[in-house]
Amino acid sequence: MAPITIALDAMGGDHAPVFVVNGIDIARARFPDTNFILYGDEQRILPLLQKKRKLKDRCEIRHTDVVIGADDKPSQALRRGRRSSMRQAIDAVASGDAQGVVSAGNTGALMAMAKYVLKTIEGVDRPAIASFFPTARGESTMLDLGANVDCDANNLVQFAVMGAAFARTVLGVQRPSVGLLNIGVEEVKGHDAVRRVAQMLRESDPPFDFYGFVEGGDIALGTVDVIVTDGFTGNVALKTVEGTARLYSRFLRAAFRRSVFSRLGYLLARPALETLRHKVDPRVYNGAMFVGLNGIVVKSHGGTDATGFASAIGVAVDMVKGRYGDLILADFERFGAPIQPIPQAATS
Amino acid sequence: MAPITIALDAMGGDHAPVFVVNGIDIARARFPDTNFILYGDEQRILPLLQKKRKLKDRCEIRHTDVVIGADDKPSQALRRGRRSSMRQAIDAVASGDAQGVVSAGNTGALMAMAKYVLKTIEGVDRPAIASFFPTARGESTMLDLGANVDCDANNLVQFAVMGAAFARTVLGVQRPSVGLLNIGVEEVKGHDAVRRVAQMLRESDPPFDFYGFVEGGDIALGTVDVIVTDGFTGNVALKTVEGTARLYSRFLRAAFRRSVFSRLGYLLARPALETLRHKVDPRVYNGAMFVGLNGIVVKSHGGTDATGFASAIGVAVDMVKGRYGDLILADFERFGAPIQPIPQAATS
Repeated sequence: MAPITIALDAMGGDHAPVFVVNGIDIARARFPDTNFILYGDEQRILPLLQKKRKLKDRCEIRHTDVVIGADDKPSQALRRGRRSSMRQAIDAVASGDAQGVVSAGNTGALMAMAKYVLKTIEGVDRPAIASFFPTARGESTMLDLGANVDCDANNLVQFAVMGAAFARTVLGVQRPSVGLLNIGVEEVKGHDAVRRVAQMLRESDPPFDFYGFVEGGDIALGTVDVIVTDGFTGNVALKTVEGTARLYSRFLRAAFRRSVFSRLGYLLARPALETLRHKVDPRVYNGAMFVGLNGIVVKSHGGTDATGFASAIGVAVDMVKGRYGDLILADFERFGAPIQPIPQAATS
Repeated sequence: MAPITIALDAMGGDHAPVFVVNGIDIARARFPDTNFILYGDEQRILPLLQKKRKLKDRCEIRHTDVVIGADDKPSQALRRGRRSSMRQAIDAVASGDAQGVVSAGNTGALMAMAKYVLKTIEGVDRPAIASFFPTARGESTMLDLGANVDCDANNLVQFAVMGAAFARTVLGVQRPSVGLLNIGVEEVKGHDAVRRVAQMLRESDPPFDFYGFVEGGDIALGTVDVIVTDGFTGNVALKTVEGTARLYSRFLRAAFRRSVFSRLGYLLARPALETLRHKVDPRVYNGAMFVGLNGIVVKSHGGTDATGFASAIGVAVDMVKGRYGDLILADFERFGAPIQPIPQAATS
């Protein structure tokens, strides 16, 4: 396979470009066949690169001093950000200079620019944000995580196809199971859109196993490989998972500090607890994918560190190597057609 | 204060009536001024009661052999369940024989019957389901948890008033903070209904502190005392919290079993870990309240045990003692008026 090139918005995120360069250095060792183009302030990036001996040959800096701010509105970013590090990194995918882009910058701006530059795949009405997370059974993915607050049945069906392709490419599941997030598993539960989607998927022949409805408790359980929901519910659910895990860790730390015995107990159990910590380490699960676009776009958490940023790069590399773009195009050619003509009025 | 009487659906739940009677026995010791009316199969309840010496004087059995099944549809239950233990327990509140009712039976049937028998409070369009849960700061409450999948801005504003009254009565917070669940904290985030609610609450003088938008991560953090959302998102969020907590416990148990050292560590830290376990024990947080009705109705988890059922009884007792009904009526008289006339078209 030919070497891969990943374009990076070197200026997006809370402590950019430091964690970006350090993250690339970790990813460099993991993916020897990958090169990087860094978009951003050369004067700030170059000194960091020069400290990483092995990184220099694999990186190219393309200078720009325009940066999209964390609080910039997507529409502003779109109009005024043509020379920004974020936009140029996306342009690199459009031009073929790179096969994927990773940014830890402003999510809304990244989505708006990526949609504008790369366009959505034919058959997809709206791109979605997907991510993966640890479960009792391994790993699962969920979408949409906030790109679309209002979704009709067609959107949700398309998310199912895109999510299943993602599970095949990045999670390596041959034929993923897909569940529709609802407030009960019975057919009568939920609002019109989810009931309609369930009916559509049961009556068609999708490129995945349609499991039916799942509930909030199934997210952590890993009942299915792919959880499909609207961007409002998905965003709330994912942040709820993260928040609850953090609370539990906090309670646990407090418990271990309670007495001399519990402190000693902690020391004895530490290696085992470290394994647990790694299992639920949000940095390992950093990297939200924008799916449904003609190009691979990965959003890293803005507050992540080098380890987390390297994970996000890893997701982009996996998607490139797994030919996510081709897979999803083929799925929509085969499966997209019969689900397209459903009129809006019947589904929302 | 005069003694309180709580009506109990003795036949609802997975192992009824055993955990019901045992739960009442725990609650009996906690609330010496409370009496109980048990609706259900006398032949099954009486032998259980006779084993509890101190309970006999405080309980009355009212026999019925009709039981609402876990899978019965609400409409069926409503039509055919007039003689059921669930319905008669609700009727006891309507007639004044009891001041509150607790059931571990079918949620949909309980809500349908409670609405039919008790009616909604004047000023409330739709009752909601509320519950409370442990957070980093103490305890918070959230509603709606599934009674209403589609909510307009008026519904959400009413939920805020009802939730705040609940936080005052049961959580003992003088002036609760109320947050609106959204996918970001900026004003532009979310769908029309949540943005409209935020505007309505900012422009009015509600009987609580309106905090603004909160996100999924704020649920466990306890950023606000009351989280307001629609029944779809709320149900998913609550079940997600529960599921994530269970997963974490499971990972933790596995970690402690990993080696001789970690097992020993567990033994040393056990007392501290037991405190943590109690802190997040779902049985302590058992009891979902149906708010917005002319009467106090508490739903226990169907799969709970005696400890959990006693918690649910405790919630009902707290609501009766805190005069939740009067409080909410007064709030709606004062605050309800200015928020009523908003036309549907502008809010959905």
